[in-house]
Amino acid sequence: MVFLKEEITSLQNPKLKKTVKLADRKERNESGLFLIEGFRELKRAADGGVCIQTLFICPKLFLGSNENALIEQIKKKGAEIVVCSASVFQKLSYRDRPDGLVAIAVQMQQTLQDLAAHLAQKKDPFLILAEAIEKPGNLGTILRSADAAGVDGVIVCDRCTDIYNPNVVRASVGTLFTLPVVEATSAETLRFLRDKNIRIIAATPSAEKEFTDTALTGAVAIAVGTEQLGLSDFWMDSSDIKVRIAMHGVADSLNVATATTLLLYEVVRQRKFK
Amino acid sequence: MVFLKEEITSLQNPKLKKTVKLADRKERNESGLFLIEGFRELKRAADGGVCIQTLFICPKLFLGSNENALIEQIKKKGAEIVVCSASVFQKLSYRDRPDGLVAIAVQMQQTLQDLAAHLAQKKDPFLILAEAIEKPGNLGTILRSADAAGVDGVIVCDRCTDIYNPNVVRASVGTLFTLPVVEATSAETLRFLRDKNIRIIAATPSAEKEFTDTALTGAVAIAVGTEQLGLSDFWMDSSDIKVRIAMHGVADSLNVATATTLLLYEVVRQRKFK
Repeated sequence: MVFLKEEITSLQNPKLKKTVKLADRKERNESGLFLIEGFRELKRAADGGVCIQTLFICPKLFLGSNENALIEQIKKKGAEIVVCSASVFQKLSYRDRPDGLVAIAVQMQQTLQDLAAHLAQKKDPFLILAEAIEKPGNLGTILRSADAAGVDGVIVCDRCTDIYNPNVVRASVGTLFTLPVVEATSAETLRFLRDKNIRIIAATPSAEKEFTDTALTGAVAIAVGTEQLGLSDFWMDSSDIKVRIAMHGVADSLNVATATTLLLYEVVRQRKFK
Repeated sequence: MVFLKEEITSLQNPKLKKTVKLADRKERNESGLFLIEGFRELKRAADGGVCIQTLFICPKLFLGSNENALIEQIKKKGAEIVVCSASVFQKLSYRDRPDGLVAIAVQMQQTLQDLAAHLAQKKDPFLILAEAIEKPGNLGTILRSADAAGVDGVIVCDRCTDIYNPNVVRASVGTLFTLPVVEATSAETLRFLRDKNIRIIAATPSAEKEFTDTALTGAVAIAVGTEQLGLSDFWMDSSDIKVRIAMHGVADSLNVATATTLLLYEVVRQRKFK
């Protein structure tokens, strides 16, 4: 399969320089673009209808045998395919083990209105409200768990890490592209949830009942806050149900992504048995 | 409070150079030493009886008001206290927001025999068996969840990341020092578990029953494997109970630390209600 006669072999290539800059948030914000790296992530982006502008490939680094089909799929949607030498590709990649695929894509920028349309079909909406998560790995892991638990959408409130950070994409293993993920302010989000009669569930050490002893059925949004401080007073005061995760050791909290996952799967368990 | 007349202000100081090297695994293996950074982590290490050789402090960077008490506690156990300038401390620190405390400590190197002694008091031992976890953040998060779920010990089999990696210490928020964590080979570990009649629980997509529908009571070890491939055939074949975590989305697995936490808290839930 021949994609292009041209192969980028110089680190001074302007296309390459522009791409590398997208690792910076400022550049992502200004351009409305972001990077997607890796076969699995790109496959999910392509299947999820994400607009890919440019796909950089380095066939020498391919790990599997389905790359060509994916490249064709992306090319058919109008993306430019650019072949790179291995040394140039290393410069583009933000991974330890690059697999020869990095793309520039257009940010999805879904809104609460988009989410509302998506939820119109759902009997009991099941959402996550992630407030000001700092670490991209945590936000990505929350998205991965959201997908696994069958969540209908994720609202990122008062964002701290933007969802287009390369490490969010990576930790989400591309599930960022398979479920509605919306960035919104806390005020907008509260109005949205109240309007839809979705109950807000918050985990706090001061809650009386444990999460496994509390009814979490019906339309719910699991609210989780920053790594350092947890949920803000705004969300703690707005929550309809407060639950506790029993802590049997010396530490006073779990990692935010693992705590979120516990709550998600408790909802799944209760929905199954209700 | 005056600790020392001397303050390290040069990046060329040999004590400093030796410390920085401990970020490398080879240096940790050869010296039997490792680094502990941060108030919370050092407090747990000091309380847990970890031997601290040298404590580097930079009072300008302290975030709280309990540092002096902790420094006294560590000094009383024989540690040397070394004051550093802020610029030198930055060089020692592996964090975004250093809090002015980094120490050189002696690796605990607990064995299966130590764990056996610890378990002698327990009616139904509750263990984790973590096989060849690659990412320090995942291993640390597993330790943090192990502490929270009241696990009696963690066995790291055929280690890939060593438990003394600075990012393991950090992600564990110091729980590495509050529960028995043992490194062992898979063969030794299997003999140990069989000898103690501890049932091995493995999560696999091919299992018939979901983890929430399966009895996980009694003496159990939750077995979890690498991020890429899951458990090896050795452990999958040796497991007594196989369970499935329902996946409702497009991705075929959860992050290893979140999956581990789900299984741990299902054991906690079942022990409570049994």
